[in-house]
Amino acid sequence: MSERDRSINPVIWKDDTLQLLDQRLLPEQEVWLRLETMDAAAAAISDMVVRGAPAIGVTAAYAVVLAARGRYAEAPANWKRAIAADLQRLLQARPTAVNLRWAVERMTPLIEAAQGDPVAALLAAVRAIHAQDIEANQRMGEFGAAYIDASDGVLTHCNAGALATAGYGTALGVIRSAWRGSESLTVFADETRPWLQGARLTAWELLRDGIPVQLLADGAAAYLMQQGKVQWVVVGADRVASNGDVANKIGTYGLAVAARHHGLKFMVVAPTTTIDMQAASGADIPIEQRDADELLYAGGRRVAAEGAAAWNPVFDVTPAALVDVLVTEKGALDAPNAASIRQLMAG
Amino acid sequence: MSERDRSINPVIWKDDTLQLLDQRLLPEQEVWLRLETMDAAAAAISDMVVRGAPAIGVTAAYAVVLAARGRYAEAPANWKRAIAADLQRLLQARPTAVNLRWAVERMTPLIEAAQGDPVAALLAAVRAIHAQDIEANQRMGEFGAAYIDASDGVLTHCNAGALATAGYGTALGVIRSAWRGSESLTVFADETRPWLQGARLTAWELLRDGIPVQLLADGAAAYLMQQGKVQWVVVGADRVASNGDVANKIGTYGLAVAARHHGLKFMVVAPTTTIDMQAASGADIPIEQRDADELLYAGGRRVAAEGAAAWNPVFDVTPAALVDVLVTEKGALDAPNAASIRQLMAG
Repeated sequence: MSERDRSINPVIWKDDTLQLLDQRLLPEQEVWLRLETMDAAAAAISDMVVRGAPAIGVTAAYAVVLAARGRYAEAPANWKRAIAADLQRLLQARPTAVNLRWAVERMTPLIEAAQGDPVAALLAAVRAIHAQDIEANQRMGEFGAAYIDASDGVLTHCNAGALATAGYGTALGVIRSAWRGSESLTVFADETRPWLQGARLTAWELLRDGIPVQLLADGAAAYLMQQGKVQWVVVGADRVASNGDVANKIGTYGLAVAARHHGLKFMVVAPTTTIDMQAASGADIPIEQRDADELLYAGGRRVAAEGAAAWNPVFDVTPAALVDVLVTEKGALDAPNAASIRQLMAG
Repeated sequence: MSERDRSINPVIWKDDTLQLLDQRLLPEQEVWLRLETMDAAAAAISDMVVRGAPAIGVTAAYAVVLAARGRYAEAPANWKRAIAADLQRLLQARPTAVNLRWAVERMTPLIEAAQGDPVAALLAAVRAIHAQDIEANQRMGEFGAAYIDASDGVLTHCNAGALATAGYGTALGVIRSAWRGSESLTVFADETRPWLQGARLTAWELLRDGIPVQLLADGAAAYLMQQGKVQWVVVGADRVASNGDVANKIGTYGLAVAARHHGLKFMVVAPTTTIDMQAASGADIPIEQRDADELLYAGGRRVAAEGAAAWNPVFDVTPAALVDVLVTEKGALDAPNAASIRQLMAG
């Protein structure tokens, strides 16, 4: 397969429908779902057919197109009133990733400005968002890779790859770029319970690209650091507050604490669409709690004793003080803080 | 059921055989295996039918009885020569828990001293070891519980309960003792990948005793601490070096790092049979690596992408400097170190 054939784009618009690679079934099966309505797309976000902040953002933008097409077909004169409630529902699909809100806010003025059938104009805007996300990832890959030595060991968490974006990936984009050339980087990936994004998705992505990866139990990460096997922790983000606090997959915060304890570097890779200037700090970021069954089951099978309860927050917040580098498509910030983020966003 | 009926003794000697509760099948099934030979008992230790340092020690002591019975029946005149090789095999069953070696070393002089059929004398010695382990756990429960307030939240890792000992438990013994009386302790348990001892065994044990428990993903522990939900981390140990470094289930070290970061207390509960005065520090403790499949599968099902490798150390080492309290049956040591441990062991 050529490089192009191998590239993963988990969100596509084809045959006038939104099509999503069902990430619940990877790596066992590669099944594409065709979504014809906004509510189906919102359910796909809630149910984690698609996940990862940038991928959720692009999916939500396409969902707005589906909503507009449906409402315009129903009532060409009144569709703008009807779509407002749709967008409110879409915004509820998942709480933590800010890219969902960003996408809806980006599309709203286009809806307001639309004359006649809005689909072509909205679709063109989404295609531009989609292309910009891939381009942003490639730029972040270069910026982040500049920090990493060819002989380094790198630990990543969850999946911040092509599957979590429109393509290429944020944290995995950096790893892809750092791998290229010397092909000597050593890559470790936490399996990332409960949803096992590391074992299921990150390993699948990296191996498709020929990048060897060693999985480890999430609990083994601190010991990996103590053993001197990694110099960098590289993760994505679901939302970055304006002061640099980072909400990301549960487990990220513990990695940041352990990295600091060992004097290792902690890098967050996120496009500016993931930075929420309305959130003063991590305390303003809603943290999603998901169903206890995600923990009480593993591999589709009940593992926990009957009667056990579970505490299942699926994100945590890493204070900016533990972030050594924040890589965005506009550049990388060392020791990011409110002032440097404000300047970056204004630039 | 009465308190007595409910108590869990995972290792028993009954009908002239060693019987083990198969911990691989819990909590789904309660199956007892009958073991007639030392090699069967050693395989049960390797395969984790029984696990937990004190339970491995008691099982190994019974395994010595099985070896002696077999060798004596084969050759009453030469059995002592034949059993030496058996005991070397038994010592290889698992590398990290020092209680295995302790049990063999404790039995060896009795073998040397035996006259005629050794079984009755050896069995009497093992029954005493067995009873002493339960009594040690109950004493440690009291010593450890004295540190914990009734309103505290406590996080434990893996299973250091009745299932990991001859009964009552080390870390869970402390939790049982702290629960009694006020019944207001809040207990959290890491699920403990890859083997899920927390979800499968700790939850099962505590719920049998009517102690509510909330499971969490191993990666969520640091966030649990950040949210102020726990004041103590309480764990067992597989081996404690003479300087206080602690080998315990993978993930323990990360908890100790995170507890220190948050100013929370970290307690290790281990009988003196788990303290290895021959190990100068944690660097002298062999860390077992187990099969990659433990990580590549979850709930009996392949979850990782094909081609993924795994790094699967099943223990890690926590430096003594991160241990706030070491609880033994001889007393509790605050900030344990080589001098205080030497004094304790001599006492």
